[in-house]
Amino acid sequence: MTVMMDAEALNAFLARDFPQVAGSYRVEQVEETRLVARLVTEEEHLRPGGTVSGPSMFALADLAIYCAILARIGPVALAVTTNASIDFMRKPAAGRDLLAECRLLKLGRVLAVAEVLIFSEGQVEPVARCSMTYSIPPKPRESVGVRYGI
Amino acid sequence: MTVMMDAEALNAFLARDFPQVAGSYRVEQVEETRLVARLVTEEEHLRPGGTVSGPSMFALADLAIYCAILARIGPVALAVTTNASIDFMRKPAAGRDLLAECRLLKLGRVLAVAEVLIFSEGQVEPVARCSMTYSIPPKPRESVGVRYGI
Amino acid sequence: MTVMMDAEALNAFLARDFPQVAGSYRVEQVEETRLVARLVTEEEHLRPGGTVSGPSMFALADLAIYCAILARIGPVALAVTTNASIDFMRKPAAGRDLLAECRLLKLGRVLAVAEVLIFSEGQVEPVARCSMTYSIPPKPRESVGVRYGI
Amino acid sequence: MTVMMDAEALNAFLARDFPQVAGSYRVEQVEETRLVARLVTEEEHLRPGGTVSGPSMFALADLAIYCAILARIGPVALAVTTNASIDFMRKPAAGRDLLAECRLLKLGRVLAVAEVLIFSEGQVEPVARCSMTYSIPPKPRESVGVRYGI
Repeated sequence: MTVMMDAEALNAFLARDFPQVAGSYRVEQVEETRLVARLVTEEEHLRPGGTVSGPSMFALADLAIYCAILARIGPVALAVTTNASIDFMRKPAAGRDLLAECRLLKLGRVLAVAEVLIFSEGQVEPVARCSMTYSIPPKPRESVGVRYGI
Repeated sequence: MTVMMDAEALNAFLARDFPQVAGSYRVEQVEETRLVARLVTEEEHLRPGGTVSGPSMFALADLAIYCAILARIGPVALAVTTNASIDFMRKPAAGRDLLAECRLLKLGRVLAVAEVLIFSEGQVEPVARCSMTYSIPPKPRESVGVRYGI
Repeated sequence: MTVMMDAEALNAFLARDFPQVAGSYRVEQVEETRLVARLVTEEEHLRPGGTVSGPSMFALADLAIYCAILARIGPVALAVTTNASIDFMRKPAAGRDLLAECRLLKLGRVLAVAEVLIFSEGQVEPVARCSMTYSIPPKPRESVGVRYGI
Repeated sequence: MTVMMDAEALNAFLARDFPQVAGSYRVEQVEETRLVARLVTEEEHLRPGGTVSGPSMFALADLAIYCAILARIGPVALAVTTNASIDFMRKPAAGRDLLAECRLLKLGRVLAVAEVLIFSEGQVEPVARCSMTYSIPPKPRESVGVRYGI
């Protein structure tokens, strides 16, 4: 099995289809069942006390898992999150980016499952853990008119 | 048992402590174990195809549950989300606000549990379901120096 | 829409296909999107201190949700749990049966989502909350050779 | 930091306090943040088609996480599961034991979080993924009258 989209391809895809998040979130490493993504933490992701907001961590986990799936099946598919479970375990370190390490546990015909650990850059203990299920739509009969025009 | 903060008090609290979200999210109804919150959907909450983003729905559920707890224990406490589980079940209707109906299932000394159903306004079928656990810090010995200065 | 299997039909189905659990678990009420199931608590379900074990509560929630789905689609389908999230909130009362109140939130073509509150019989406060996703297999082309011979 | 209970001590603890499960479940390896437990699959754990039941997998994950915590804090504490999230990803292989690989992600003063992957023995792909939160009770003032008499 092989990776269909590398980090560069995934970041180009995000910049085109998700311009509102592409400035802050980016894919750094891609392997067959592993992916690392970064959140460049900025003012908008912070909460009182300098901690990164829950929704920003959720978004980072979601993006990492989405890209780990697209890395394998390509940008054609309209995969959507159906379930997410997240544990917030520690306060992120102030003034540091967050790194999400994603592991793809299952890539089935209709469902994919992956888990993510989120770290403050340079820290050993994870700040959050997340697992998600994605629903993968059936392949279209023909390859005409693919969704993203790529 | 009684409600310590009503919708007006909770919205004033959000405007002061969370100005970055208070423009879009607001509390509409507060009862002892029930709360309704609204997301005024705007461009920034949308994804391609006009659907509301997962992180925006997560933020709405989190805010509803946070406020349902503060309604009972007041604005002093530094309650934090420790676990969230969310099911995305249907695509939100385009051009409509989202409403979160929160039910407080447990308000313990150290943990609170609540669940939320999210609806597109005017629709019967929920678009998402979420449950969260909050950790409630121990009460300070004295009421000097409360966190939010209220 | 209509209910395809009532409580009697579901209990007969459990007795035939799941004889190892059918003695303790039974369906009591069935409506279109709501179902009540009972765990007759016995020695085997208990833990030190007289509390019902977590796996027994998990099994009760799973059975309630499984039956809520079968009530609608009939006994043909081989539906399987893909995700479960459960919060244990209070210690069950000693010497009482548990009741699971299930609400079917989504019954899609490939996924169903339901939630359950579990109560000690006669108590107002829930002891546990659970939500599950079921994967529903595609319908066979023909109705020959249905799975359960019913 | 050090391990307070090794595999032998944990299995002796299970045999004494949880005799109803100790015959089927056992701890095999214990490290500071990692533990392996085995379910010796027998008739009672199976469902039609030879697959291991969901509640049996839940019980295996719960036991692994419980023991991973006790390995660190000793048998004194009355730790209880407050939240569990589980993904069932593949059908277990027929006629094989299940192995749970547990990783302790957080061991705080009041909450612990751990995750588990469950495998059919000898298989590479996990059959299930589980994460749980445990609530750890405050330490008693004195060490008189410890709970388990060990």
